[in-house]
Amino acid sequence: MARTAEARQKLREICRVAARVFYEKGYDGASMQDIAEAVGLTKAGLYHHVSSKDMLLFEIMNYGMDILDEYVLAKVKDIPDPREKLRRTIVGHIDLVVRARDMEITVILHENRSLKGALRKKINARKRAYIEYLEDLIARVQQLSGKPPKLAPHVAAFAVLGMINWLYQWYHMEGSVKEEEISSAYVDFFFRGLLGNG
Amino acid sequence: MARTAEARQKLREICRVAARVFYEKGYDGASMQDIAEAVGLTKAGLYHHVSSKDMLLFEIMNYGMDILDEYVLAKVKDIPDPREKLRRTIVGHIDLVVRARDMEITVILHENRSLKGALRKKINARKRAYIEYLEDLIARVQQLSGKPPKLAPHVAAFAVLGMINWLYQWYHMEGSVKEEEISSAYVDFFFRGLLGNG
Repeated sequence: MARTAEARQKLREICRVAARVFYEKGYDGASMQDIAEAVGLTKAGLYHHVSSKDMLLFEIMNYGMDILDEYVLAKVKDIPDPREKLRRTIVGHIDLVVRARDMEITVILHENRSLKGALRKKINARKRAYIEYLEDLIARVQQLSGKPPKLAPHVAAFAVLGMINWLYQWYHMEGSVKEEEISSAYVDFFFRGLLGNG
Repeated sequence: MARTAEARQKLREICRVAARVFYEKGYDGASMQDIAEAVGLTKAGLYHHVSSKDMLLFEIMNYGMDILDEYVLAKVKDIPDPREKLRRTIVGHIDLVVRARDMEITVILHENRSLKGALRKKINARKRAYIEYLEDLIARVQQLSGKPPKLAPHVAAFAVLGMINWLYQWYHMEGSVKEEEISSAYVDFFFRGLLGNG
């Protein structure tokens, strides 16, 4: 769908607010009326931007994947060294998960049981593309090490995704552990686990 | 609450069925009527076993922690070597997450935003006790290695919990990766990441 930059900005604002409402009330517990009120629109005004609650959930998840592309993947795409590229991808992804502003988006992205049919397939295809990107990068890092791979890139990719995405369950910006500490501890831990040096 | 063994068995059966219903319909989307029907009880019959929907969610989560205690922690508690004890804890926990029978229980255990007040505190205290157990075990493994610790036991505990709990997002029993492969890949990966050898 072709959208003006302005309409796209408004939709993103709606997505951020709606993500917070879904996070607090649950997808089934939140009505379009709740969301319209939270955004400061009439219900008709909200439907002008998004055609249904299903579509809104889809737009939130799509926005979550857009953020990953824009704030993480676009910034590392020209890095030639696979190790550095992987390191920067992990650090960027961690930043996305722990940043308060987008936290709800990230959480909702991973509770996609509410999304059905074609919309679900579209989101899953974007997630799969990211996992394949990670697998490929991991395989290249393993190859560069000159040692036989210690585990399948597929398994390593899911291990690191688990470590990162689980952060929202326990990591608090205000807590005693700084984001930089987590990032560097996680990166070092992952590379040691992957390559066995250190 | 003192319960007969029979009442406890019945409650567990209800928990397993209810977990599946919550998993499919969402906590807000599922009614006590839906759950009664799925268990094959009248609504009054269901209320005989559990006083409210909140309490049912609490019982499911409590059951999830009971399973962890019974099937994982009780079996490793007399192992004197911290490395072997940690290894067996990780393997046992993975088994719990990927076993189809209890999968929904495990998932619901980690979506505890729907649980409020004192019930939420009780579940969180049980989760915290498990995390402290892992941290303590990890610290002892680090100490035994004779090398300076490479990361805080706290961070390592959450990394391994993330790796394990995320499995439900992607691991399928029917898939090409066998549970034993995942278990041993994860254990080796974690120990390399923790201690840096390998």
